[in-house]
Amino acid sequence: MRIVVDAMGSDDYPHPDVAGAVLAAREFGDEIILVGDESRIKTELSQHETAGLRIRVCPAAEVIEMTDKPSVASRSKKDSSMHVGLNLVKQGEADAFVSAGNTGAILAVAMLQTLRRISGVKRPALGVTFPIPTRPLLIDNGANADCQPDYLLQFALMGSLFIERVQGIKQPRVALISNGEEEGKGNTLIKETIPLLAASGLNFIGNIEPKEFMGGAADVGVTDGFTGNIMIKTAEAVAAHLLGLVRTEIMASPLTQLGGLLAKSAFRRVGRALNPDEVGGAPLLGVNGVVIVAHGRSNAYAIKQAVGQARLSVQNDVVGAIRAGLQGIE
Amino acid sequence: MRIVVDAMGSDDYPHPDVAGAVLAAREFGDEIILVGDESRIKTELSQHETAGLRIRVCPAAEVIEMTDKPSVASRSKKDSSMHVGLNLVKQGEADAFVSAGNTGAILAVAMLQTLRRISGVKRPALGVTFPIPTRPLLIDNGANADCQPDYLLQFALMGSLFIERVQGIKQPRVALISNGEEEGKGNTLIKETIPLLAASGLNFIGNIEPKEFMGGAADVGVTDGFTGNIMIKTAEAVAAHLLGLVRTEIMASPLTQLGGLLAKSAFRRVGRALNPDEVGGAPLLGVNGVVIVAHGRSNAYAIKQAVGQARLSVQNDVVGAIRAGLQGIE
Repeated sequence: MRIVVDAMGSDDYPHPDVAGAVLAAREFGDEIILVGDESRIKTELSQHETAGLRIRVCPAAEVIEMTDKPSVASRSKKDSSMHVGLNLVKQGEADAFVSAGNTGAILAVAMLQTLRRISGVKRPALGVTFPIPTRPLLIDNGANADCQPDYLLQFALMGSLFIERVQGIKQPRVALISNGEEEGKGNTLIKETIPLLAASGLNFIGNIEPKEFMGGAADVGVTDGFTGNIMIKTAEAVAAHLLGLVRTEIMASPLTQLGGLLAKSAFRRVGRALNPDEVGGAPLLGVNGVVIVAHGRSNAYAIKQAVGQARLSVQNDVVGAIRAGLQGIE
Repeated sequence: MRIVVDAMGSDDYPHPDVAGAVLAAREFGDEIILVGDESRIKTELSQHETAGLRIRVCPAAEVIEMTDKPSVASRSKKDSSMHVGLNLVKQGEADAFVSAGNTGAILAVAMLQTLRRISGVKRPALGVTFPIPTRPLLIDNGANADCQPDYLLQFALMGSLFIERVQGIKQPRVALISNGEEEGKGNTLIKETIPLLAASGLNFIGNIEPKEFMGGAADVGVTDGFTGNIMIKTAEAVAAHLLGLVRTEIMASPLTQLGGLLAKSAFRRVGRALNPDEVGGAPLLGVNGVVIVAHGRSNAYAIKQAVGQARLSVQNDVVGAIRAGLQGIE
């Protein structure tokens, strides 16, 4: 397998991106293609023990920065690491693309400039795996701020196929994320999507609230990209706020400090359980190729995990499954 | 001041509702009117020391249960404690109404059957005070699942007046909750609301993400009721999940258990800081009277705090301010 890693992706590029690529090449034995500024990548690589690893560098002259406007950069920086890397996938010279770069730009370059949509896909969508034990997928997480019921139907299908293929769950439980489970709850979008999902042949279990989703009640939570993004960002903000509060209160007295010290391993396990790095990036579903978007603040481990996520999608032919699945639903 | 407390509101009515009313009568010295099943209320009251307190009972023959469908119950149970209590406010026999009952039913009875909308209000909205130190208001939190830009403009105005009057903050910072702060982010609703808020004369600071809202960047966070409700419910779900995780991991070994024991006071302070009971219920803004909706699982303390919230709204004439403010904005 050949996996492209965007060396100019993360907030701190190319350091974590290259280090993660080295980890991935070592752990998985795959060929990793690092795309970006050749000399910077080589300097970075020289810090690592790479003998015997299948790593090659593919130069790209431009970098799309986090501050770049996606719609502009995707059209003007045609020699960016994203363009070059995604074109390798398009041309069949690589099997997947992993980047921790500007999410909007990755979406724009993948959807509009390089891979393009799978025929029949109305809107590609970004899935995100929730760090709870059952690892459910929330889709869409921000690719589409405005949605229609037929988009949500396709998100459900793509998410369901992803979970089935990558997690090996037969007939994943698909739910709409709503403000209540009762009939009559939800906004117009939700209400109009219900009959489509009920008739879809998917294992649609109805509407659920965030609490049930966090409790593992569904394998796929379907939402418009605006709501999904607010949900993820709220979850991250609350977790950070709460852990900060716990830290402050524990530091407030010598006794509680001692308690915190003794309970340190418990906190470490909590941190690990919630760590988004573990799940390894968000799949962009509905384009002609495997694309995994990692957090901008990814470290090497997170990049390696994202490569792992990409491998699973390739091995289990998620793209082919979506291509075939779309026939069934239309 | 005369404040109605719905004795048949909470999940565990009438126990916490009556006990909270007694606490409120004692702390604030106001007249509390308990509305509901007279004999059950009197039995409950006999458990408390009420000598010298201004508490009276107003009978209501029906109860709207949590499981009742709001649209049906609001029309069919016209002698419910909600109808009777809200009519006392409407007829000027009381100054505010507090209930921990079925939220949808409270809204329906207040908006459609009793108090009705303030003239010029397109849609009343439910505000919720976030349990962070600056106590910002998120509005709407579920009264309106589908919104238009002109509704959000009014939510911003009503929320701003509420914060100004109740918290004494001059020119509260008003922000739209969005999936990004940059121009071009947001769904169509957000994008179309921006120019209205920019021209409103309110202290509009732009779009913010949930993280900034949780960090205290705004005094009023404006959102449609669907997104707002998902945001609140996600925040509650994540907090519960996280604290559960911490508890489980601390119980996992004798050493971490000891640590947890020593740090107990820190956890107690965290719990208190996050306790929604402290903020005392959500104001329904835009109807002709003060209505405070408390959590269904309120205890006596939470009911008392909700009465406190109602008092502040009455003392500072939030309803009058909204009535006057609407003239200015149209």
